[in-house]
Amino acid sequence: MNGEGKIPVAVLGATGLVGQHFVALLDGHPSFAVTRVAASARSAGQRYADVCRWSLPTEMPSWARDLVVEDASAAASEVAASVRVAFSSLDTRSAESLEPRYASEGVFVVSNASAHRMAADVPLVVAEVNADHLDLVRAQRHGEGGSSKGAIVCHPNCSATGLVLPLAPLHRTFGVQSVSLTTLQATSGAGYPGVASLDLLDNVVPFIQDEEEKLAQEPGKILGQLRSSSAGEPSVAPADLRISAQCFRVPVTVGHTLSVSVKLQGEPSSDEIRAVWMAEPASSSIRYLDELDRPQPRLDRDFQGGMGVSVGRLRDCPVLGHRFVVLSHNMVRGAAGGALSTAEAALRRGLMPV
Amino acid sequence: MNGEGKIPVAVLGATGLVGQHFVALLDGHPSFAVTRVAASARSAGQRYADVCRWSLPTEMPSWARDLVVEDASAAASEVAASVRVAFSSLDTRSAESLEPRYASEGVFVVSNASAHRMAADVPLVVAEVNADHLDLVRAQRHGEGGSSKGAIVCHPNCSATGLVLPLAPLHRTFGVQSVSLTTLQATSGAGYPGVASLDLLDNVVPFIQDEEEKLAQEPGKILGQLRSSSAGEPSVAPADLRISAQCFRVPVTVGHTLSVSVKLQGEPSSDEIRAVWMAEPASSSIRYLDELDRPQPRLDRDFQGGMGVSVGRLRDCPVLGHRFVVLSHNMVRGAAGGALSTAEAALRRGLMPV
Amino acid sequence: MNGEGKIPVAVLGATGLVGQHFVALLDGHPSFAVTRVAASARSAGQRYADVCRWSLPTEMPSWARDLVVEDASAAASEVAASVRVAFSSLDTRSAESLEPRYASEGVFVVSNASAHRMAADVPLVVAEVNADHLDLVRAQRHGEGGSSKGAIVCHPNCSATGLVLPLAPLHRTFGVQSVSLTTLQATSGAGYPGVASLDLLDNVVPFIQDEEEKLAQEPGKILGQLRSSSAGEPSVAPADLRISAQCFRVPVTVGHTLSVSVKLQGEPSSDEIRAVWMAEPASSSIRYLDELDRPQPRLDRDFQGGMGVSVGRLRDCPVLGHRFVVLSHNMVRGAAGGALSTAEAALRRGLMPV
Amino acid sequence: MNGEGKIPVAVLGATGLVGQHFVALLDGHPSFAVTRVAASARSAGQRYADVCRWSLPTEMPSWARDLVVEDASAAASEVAASVRVAFSSLDTRSAESLEPRYASEGVFVVSNASAHRMAADVPLVVAEVNADHLDLVRAQRHGEGGSSKGAIVCHPNCSATGLVLPLAPLHRTFGVQSVSLTTLQATSGAGYPGVASLDLLDNVVPFIQDEEEKLAQEPGKILGQLRSSSAGEPSVAPADLRISAQCFRVPVTVGHTLSVSVKLQGEPSSDEIRAVWMAEPASSSIRYLDELDRPQPRLDRDFQGGMGVSVGRLRDCPVLGHRFVVLSHNMVRGAAGGALSTAEAALRRGLMPV
Repeated sequence: MNGEGKIPVAVLGATGLVGQHFVALLDGHPSFAVTRVAASARSAGQRYADVCRWSLPTEMPSWARDLVVEDASAAASEVAASVRVAFSSLDTRSAESLEPRYASEGVFVVSNASAHRMAADVPLVVAEVNADHLDLVRAQRHGEGGSSKGAIVCHPNCSATGLVLPLAPLHRTFGVQSVSLTTLQATSGAGYPGVASLDLLDNVVPFIQDEEEKLAQEPGKILGQLRSSSAGEPSVAPADLRISAQCFRVPVTVGHTLSVSVKLQGEPSSDEIRAVWMAEPASSSIRYLDELDRPQPRLDRDFQGGMGVSVGRLRDCPVLGHRFVVLSHNMVRGAAGGALSTAEAALRRGLMPV
Repeated sequence: MNGEGKIPVAVLGATGLVGQHFVALLDGHPSFAVTRVAASARSAGQRYADVCRWSLPTEMPSWARDLVVEDASAAASEVAASVRVAFSSLDTRSAESLEPRYASEGVFVVSNASAHRMAADVPLVVAEVNADHLDLVRAQRHGEGGSSKGAIVCHPNCSATGLVLPLAPLHRTFGVQSVSLTTLQATSGAGYPGVASLDLLDNVVPFIQDEEEKLAQEPGKILGQLRSSSAGEPSVAPADLRISAQCFRVPVTVGHTLSVSVKLQGEPSSDEIRAVWMAEPASSSIRYLDELDRPQPRLDRDFQGGMGVSVGRLRDCPVLGHRFVVLSHNMVRGAAGGALSTAEAALRRGLMPV
Repeated sequence: MNGEGKIPVAVLGATGLVGQHFVALLDGHPSFAVTRVAASARSAGQRYADVCRWSLPTEMPSWARDLVVEDASAAASEVAASVRVAFSSLDTRSAESLEPRYASEGVFVVSNASAHRMAADVPLVVAEVNADHLDLVRAQRHGEGGSSKGAIVCHPNCSATGLVLPLAPLHRTFGVQSVSLTTLQATSGAGYPGVASLDLLDNVVPFIQDEEEKLAQEPGKILGQLRSSSAGEPSVAPADLRISAQCFRVPVTVGHTLSVSVKLQGEPSSDEIRAVWMAEPASSSIRYLDELDRPQPRLDRDFQGGMGVSVGRLRDCPVLGHRFVVLSHNMVRGAAGGALSTAEAALRRGLMPV
Repeated sequence: MNGEGKIPVAVLGATGLVGQHFVALLDGHPSFAVTRVAASARSAGQRYADVCRWSLPTEMPSWARDLVVEDASAAASEVAASVRVAFSSLDTRSAESLEPRYASEGVFVVSNASAHRMAADVPLVVAEVNADHLDLVRAQRHGEGGSSKGAIVCHPNCSATGLVLPLAPLHRTFGVQSVSLTTLQATSGAGYPGVASLDLLDNVVPFIQDEEEKLAQEPGKILGQLRSSSAGEPSVAPADLRISAQCFRVPVTVGHTLSVSVKLQGEPSSDEIRAVWMAEPASSSIRYLDELDRPQPRLDRDFQGGMGVSVGRLRDCPVLGHRFVVLSHNMVRGAAGGALSTAEAALRRGLMPV
């Protein structure tokens, strides 16, 4: 057990890499206590410590060791009945059917899966950027099959998260017209076992399934405007920006690097762009590094416990206007930590079931 | 000794990584025979086998083992007097002063160094692309301090070479307006010892000194037009294209990968672009790979003995028009092999001293 | 088709990494021509070029591209009827049942699988070391279910092969009493996809399933004595040596490194040991490197096209007597190339069916 | 400034990798406050934040940023006069002359350098193993040039530290006769820039300068007995054990792995050995892992903040008796953290100057 008086939560997909990060980040959390862990039928009925191939450098929390893993599908009703919030890192296919089921049983699902990210009534949220979009859950609850308590809230793709954080203040200040980027993504993003070692020793791979499509779609929704219909029903009007991405898998364990070119309205100078980032509050999770050879995965991924995003190498670009490089921790900032931050924002906004 | 009746050549900078590739590629060459090897004063006077830290998987040619390394500077006149051609992989600073000196003593210098690449009367040549530019050596010989036999001919930067080969037929067919690229470059490009292992284990580095500038400048010259003044003096009018590059060093031993976005005149379709590459003769050194996860350094760098360039992932891009990925062997195609190919072209054109 | 007048051979397990090496090494072979390729049911019926994820830096031979992959099990009789020799890189379980079946149908099976290596009437052969053991096939043909033509001949484990080559002349000259070794094995030894990249980036793994047992057992049989019973039936008396191994998987694509300590009879000096290796004929595949930091996988694995074994760092050891380091190509020397060499030895000895 | 009422300390060699770990580990230390940082003349006079290429994933402590780096040699007297303790990670040559100089000026030098480790009156201490050896400083102070306050205390080689921790309880319980080991050492052990990336991508290197000699010598001294002469002068009688080592550099950033074979007196069973480790108090820093594929650098190096040592794969060995694998953090346990632990032990024992 992880704490009295806290909100009981389940982790769905708890044995995977992102699930492990959820368990680690929720250890000692002031508001949430993990009381259930669920995964596929294969792991069900076994102790978490026995069935989970723990891959974090920190120790598995002792309270997690003896939790019995449940079948996220077969035991859905039992799990849903005993928690108020579920953090989901289910695979896409499972998430597609199971997340709505948990939501309809009254659970506030905060998901790192991609299945429902682009649904019109599902908020796609990076807490520092568009926490106001969380109000979309009201539309969701009014919709067909809506629960008065449950909801699905999504966290974006790991690379999209890293992109959107430095882009958001530029979009607010100048307006972003188009973005062209190349990613150098860590292998942990593919889960375990994920990419074969023969593919990533002395090699890079110029393709990640569905990743370029997600990068083209998700930022527009995140940077979009929350609006209300005349009936007061909220909706999000996506930002009008064009994004083109080429994704690489590189021999790095943790930390996604983005090489970004951007075309802004009004053609600001590099100094003006840098000033916008510098003016961001500490809570924005962004820092700018002046060293010419930064950011780097090994040196910068753990900034702010993995929640901070490092930006560097800003300069003029004769083709689109400006270029820069972004580095973020794909498992914390880009997955479990970001989703937890989104849940905390929902809690503060009074959107979670009591 | 490496052969009777062949043109005697020197390798300048023979102990470095590129120099070793020159020695290996010239082994058994039908036209050239290495008779002198030169390097810095530090190595002078020692057997090549003793002083060179040979780093190729093939054996050092037996004829090279007993060559005595000479001081490329102090022994310049002696070396120059005994050869007709010199392949140079000197460091930039040495190349700046020494290459003109060898040229003025009648040696035809084929250089992989960057020192003289952008000089107006120095041809910058990728043999398959702009061998006609070699005629610039006539201007050079007529110039101040020009020798009737000697000349400097340059081979471009390793990444620029890989970029220009697939770009050239597109430029001829459609016209290239702008190029935005991100490179993932192998560590051998930095020579030995080059990049520290701590910087490239579980890491990528978003900076390579002077590389982005070279990538911005050199392709325009290579893709330029050879013209003649009314006095018949040749010159090159650079192509009018804008290039923006972000260069990364990645944990790969050999093989530079380029993520390229391109804006073409006339907005051709991806099929038309692919058709242009497919229509290239086998001698163009380009192949297109249809597999979604290719090209890759480990699988594709040795195509055509390292001289071939692999292209893949061509697709529409909402920002610039089209994207694709290029892979080439930075030590062979991008350095020693490319320079040798340029020398062979000069020989065929009758530009070498007899 | 790969050649007229040659012995038709099948490759079993042709789509795997070792199978691909068999196909590459048999390209243009003077005696053997690959006419059939077989694999699991999953691949059956498809073109080799379509179903095989070719992973070698050299091109797939053109004659192999259009071969239709057959089901090594379901089509066993058909395949067996049309070839005289089969090179097997089947997985252990398939090899266990299928190799005897092919043998009983008259096929001379040269196997890289471990299933039958320790069977008393199966020769376990490194061609340079114990080609005479091939006579064991006579015992096999006389045995229960023996075929007058077919037989199973095994090639040892990849690390055992690298160990036995430098050990054999020491055993002949001095007698080996005990061997303690630690291996640093390349990931290609685990096949594809094999080891997860997360396990081998910035990491080593101190365990390889069944590997230490194979290393403890196989060398004794290989270094054993061929004997004849009074009835003239051949058998092998294993060498009496104790072997202890600790196996690591390390982030290397190709090339197994062995750290070996050895206790020899008669306590020879390091000079005497080195002299034994130096006295070996060139055909022994061994070379000794004097450089303190050699052998290394990247520099030495391709020695003699991958068939040569490099030894270095020989010195006195206060615990067992002597230490040295061995490096060999695990896919060529330790698998396909070694097995092919064994087949060639069997052909020379007249043991193959006509 | 790092704290009132604490012992002022200097870090010598503060800009190197080990020096950075000293600075990080001393941040907020209850007893010591870093007031001076010194390095080579090259860095002297500059702010620590400006001249130090900080390579730890944690931030540089803010109090360290503005310290002005002093010349460890030229400013030795000034630095010595203002601190009571110095942590040294000077290079061997500097340590040889400078450490005695600081000691003679009354500074208690805790050194990670190898220069004085084997001197008869210098304690070589792993705090959990032989803190009693610290009494040797009394002999040192009585010796020629001895200071009444100053002294030199050494911390062993990084691999020797990892070896000695699990060996010590075995030596106390059974007696260790001989040890044969192979190390797989991380590149951070070579400092920065250290090993070239070309040497450690897709490669391992079978040699580390002087490392095998240190591993052969140091454990005997650490496991030795503190004795007193009739005059009460302490000395250490080294343990009588033979050690043989083969050291590899492998592509791992942090964490040394040791493959150890050991011959014990009395031939205990593996169960008895495991029981000895299990009976160790938590303060012994050892844990035993039952998983077959552990310990691993990436998963186990941060155990107990990098101070814990993980042991696994214990089993019978037909050659020496037993084998096991050890993993420890080479920068914390094997260098700065271990040295700090030694300093704390000296403080508790009242050996530090007041």
